[in-house]
Amino acid sequence: MAPIISIEEAGRHSGESVTLRGWLYNQRDAGKLLFPIFRDGTGIMQGVCSLKESPAAYEALKNLTQESSCIVTGTVRPDARAPGGHELHVSEVQVVQRIADGDPYPIQLKEHGTDFLLENRHLWMRAPRQAAILRIRAEAIHAARNFMDSQGYTLTDSPMFTPSACEGTTTLFEVSYIDDEKAYLTQSGQLYLEATAAALGKVYCFGPVFRAEKSKTRRHLTEFWMLEPEAAYAHLEDMMVLGEGLVSHMVQSVVKNRPRELETLSRDVTKLAAVVPPFPRMLYDDAVVTLQKNGKAAKWGDDFGGEDETVLSSQFDRPVIIHRYPASIKAFYMEPDPQRPELALGFDMLAPEGYGEIMGGGERVSSYDLLLKRVREHNLPEDAFKWYLDLRRYGSVPHAGFGLGLERTIAWICGTSHIREVIPFPRLLYRIYP
Amino acid sequence: MAPIISIEEAGRHSGESVTLRGWLYNQRDAGKLLFPIFRDGTGIMQGVCSLKESPAAYEALKNLTQESSCIVTGTVRPDARAPGGHELHVSEVQVVQRIADGDPYPIQLKEHGTDFLLENRHLWMRAPRQAAILRIRAEAIHAARNFMDSQGYTLTDSPMFTPSACEGTTTLFEVSYIDDEKAYLTQSGQLYLEATAAALGKVYCFGPVFRAEKSKTRRHLTEFWMLEPEAAYAHLEDMMVLGEGLVSHMVQSVVKNRPRELETLSRDVTKLAAVVPPFPRMLYDDAVVTLQKNGKAAKWGDDFGGEDETVLSSQFDRPVIIHRYPASIKAFYMEPDPQRPELALGFDMLAPEGYGEIMGGGERVSSYDLLLKRVREHNLPEDAFKWYLDLRRYGSVPHAGFGLGLERTIAWICGTSHIREVIPFPRLLYRIYP
Repeated sequence: MAPIISIEEAGRHSGESVTLRGWLYNQRDAGKLLFPIFRDGTGIMQGVCSLKESPAAYEALKNLTQESSCIVTGTVRPDARAPGGHELHVSEVQVVQRIADGDPYPIQLKEHGTDFLLENRHLWMRAPRQAAILRIRAEAIHAARNFMDSQGYTLTDSPMFTPSACEGTTTLFEVSYIDDEKAYLTQSGQLYLEATAAALGKVYCFGPVFRAEKSKTRRHLTEFWMLEPEAAYAHLEDMMVLGEGLVSHMVQSVVKNRPRELETLSRDVTKLAAVVPPFPRMLYDDAVVTLQKNGKAAKWGDDFGGEDETVLSSQFDRPVIIHRYPASIKAFYMEPDPQRPELALGFDMLAPEGYGEIMGGGERVSSYDLLLKRVREHNLPEDAFKWYLDLRRYGSVPHAGFGLGLERTIAWICGTSHIREVIPFPRLLYRIYP
Repeated sequence: MAPIISIEEAGRHSGESVTLRGWLYNQRDAGKLLFPIFRDGTGIMQGVCSLKESPAAYEALKNLTQESSCIVTGTVRPDARAPGGHELHVSEVQVVQRIADGDPYPIQLKEHGTDFLLENRHLWMRAPRQAAILRIRAEAIHAARNFMDSQGYTLTDSPMFTPSACEGTTTLFEVSYIDDEKAYLTQSGQLYLEATAAALGKVYCFGPVFRAEKSKTRRHLTEFWMLEPEAAYAHLEDMMVLGEGLVSHMVQSVVKNRPRELETLSRDVTKLAAVVPPFPRMLYDDAVVTLQKNGKAAKWGDDFGGEDETVLSSQFDRPVIIHRYPASIKAFYMEPDPQRPELALGFDMLAPEGYGEIMGGGERVSSYDLLLKRVREHNLPEDAFKWYLDLRRYGSVPHAGFGLGLERTIAWICGTSHIREVIPFPRLLYRIYP
């Protein structure tokens, strides 16, 4: 019996007889020769099957419907024209399930509309482009976790159920908890991380967060993943350095370990290769001036919109860090700059090529009195924040962190225009199926 | 300036002057000598400070309140009696925040009631025992992910929002989605993984799942983490082998990399060292006989209760795999055993020492007709399961997987009696604060 291998490994079995288990992705019929293309989840591989040499295999493949499952045995032969550099000379075919002619695979090899593809996301993800994006996503996550672990950060998962909001309540999802009690789905694990950082020093969480954003844009999902580090005795500068290290490690790991997938996406790899530290930095003050020079109506004190971000990030070949925003447009927990208290010791990281904000963070208020004042100014429920205030009553330390939006980062790495492609089952404003 | 190090690293700096940034965990006052104990999140370290040699440091430490934050400089000296084998001869102390005498740290170094500790979970996690458990949790997760990645499994995150239930509706949490539409929080990522397995071959997800279980036991959380692999062209046997490999890798990684934490928990490490493959296996049929021999009222066709599981697992020094349960007590999607169709090709893994079920899985129905019949028999909404049925219409293959309950696994590894200690912020039936 030939050894069972994956298509990914085929190059290492040149000249050998192997068995692949997968699906028929497509096939060209040239009379007495068939040119099937198989996929097995790790990639696609072209085959050739001759009526004369392998009549039984030929009969099994002939007229086999697209996406039918099959187990195929043959010899791996180098072929410079084939994707992956090898093709399979098919000698045996076992059809596992033949898709009925009267009920063909719904996603034909042609263009389909977005709604149709999203409705069939469970099948659409088999397409080489979609599968490549999902493999890149997995690689980027693997790289991100290993980077954080290597930097001495301990994973502490933040809870999904929260009794109150982290930042505002208009975008919160409400859950019927037990006995008609209400709970809310987390929008960020940060507040909880501030507690675990005081217990464990350097920590991070990496899990789903939820935002009921009514804005139906290319950049929004109602459910997405966020990586959030937090470190005791850390400052703004530490987080900007950690952030650029993390992002460049994710990008370079994908470049190194997923070249075939980037090729499938026709991604310009030279643009990704440039993403190494140090990233350019710009004060908020200077960002406003840059926008004005570029004809934008920005004025000091405004938050930046999507178009502003594109203008700012397009100045650079790697992500740009904008720091020290006006405190008035940033979250209540941000530490003021001691030199200029009207500024927050915070930063945003904007991806190049118009992909917008992928990271935001900074130093947190460590004074109990100032934090209590802020909680009151923002009309936040003091009861629900009692535990959070406790962190400043009992052994407060300077501390800082950030949040990295996973899907926006992956969309940029993949060079894909819509964030809905970079998560297996996107949850959108008007879609939670399949 | 002395280099800033973590307590974890102190052993490598013997004889050197170093700076620690952390908190005062406890202190013994012996007149002209103080014996402070510091913690910094990576561990605890004993110090000694002499009035004669370091009067300023002595004054700063004297009467310093428990959990006050401070930055301490001193020389690392070997001391066989000290935890970690070294102590710090303190020369300089900078108090970052002194906790007020009138408002002392709430968790004193004595026994507290469970409700009080849970109410103060944000502080309780600083206790050496709790911090050790959280570090073991992080190590076990790191090991689990790296094991899955090394086995060629691609991470594909399953969604949290689902339009329908995976198994029954009584334990579902309902969410107010957009415009009064309802969504439900996932109880398992499995069904979605079956789709990604058909796209990518071998996949897994690892994220939070939610169960509104009314049973208020030591073993239940409303929100917990589950690792679920799924593989195309895989069978029951493959998953039993993968499952024992995964669990033993998690256990042995903790034993190897977290010995100090296991010591803090007084965990019997010899019991963990025995956890290597192969794990014992037992047919359900034989498990019933074993229970009967041990005086239990079990009869063929019953599901096992917690006490039954304890009887079964206490026969072995490592987890036991019970396989081929009656189909009638297992989920609708389980593939029947072709030899004995009244049995499901499924298994459960029971942890030793009475920790109960930590894993469940098996082979899934691959026939469209059988799955449709099961969906109807279980009165499941056919519309909501259309996409799931599609997986059997279009290129169906044999496939199998399992789910590993993270918190139960960690509780067993830690030897802790309550699952609420093994997650940073436990969500219980009557507790979602802090």
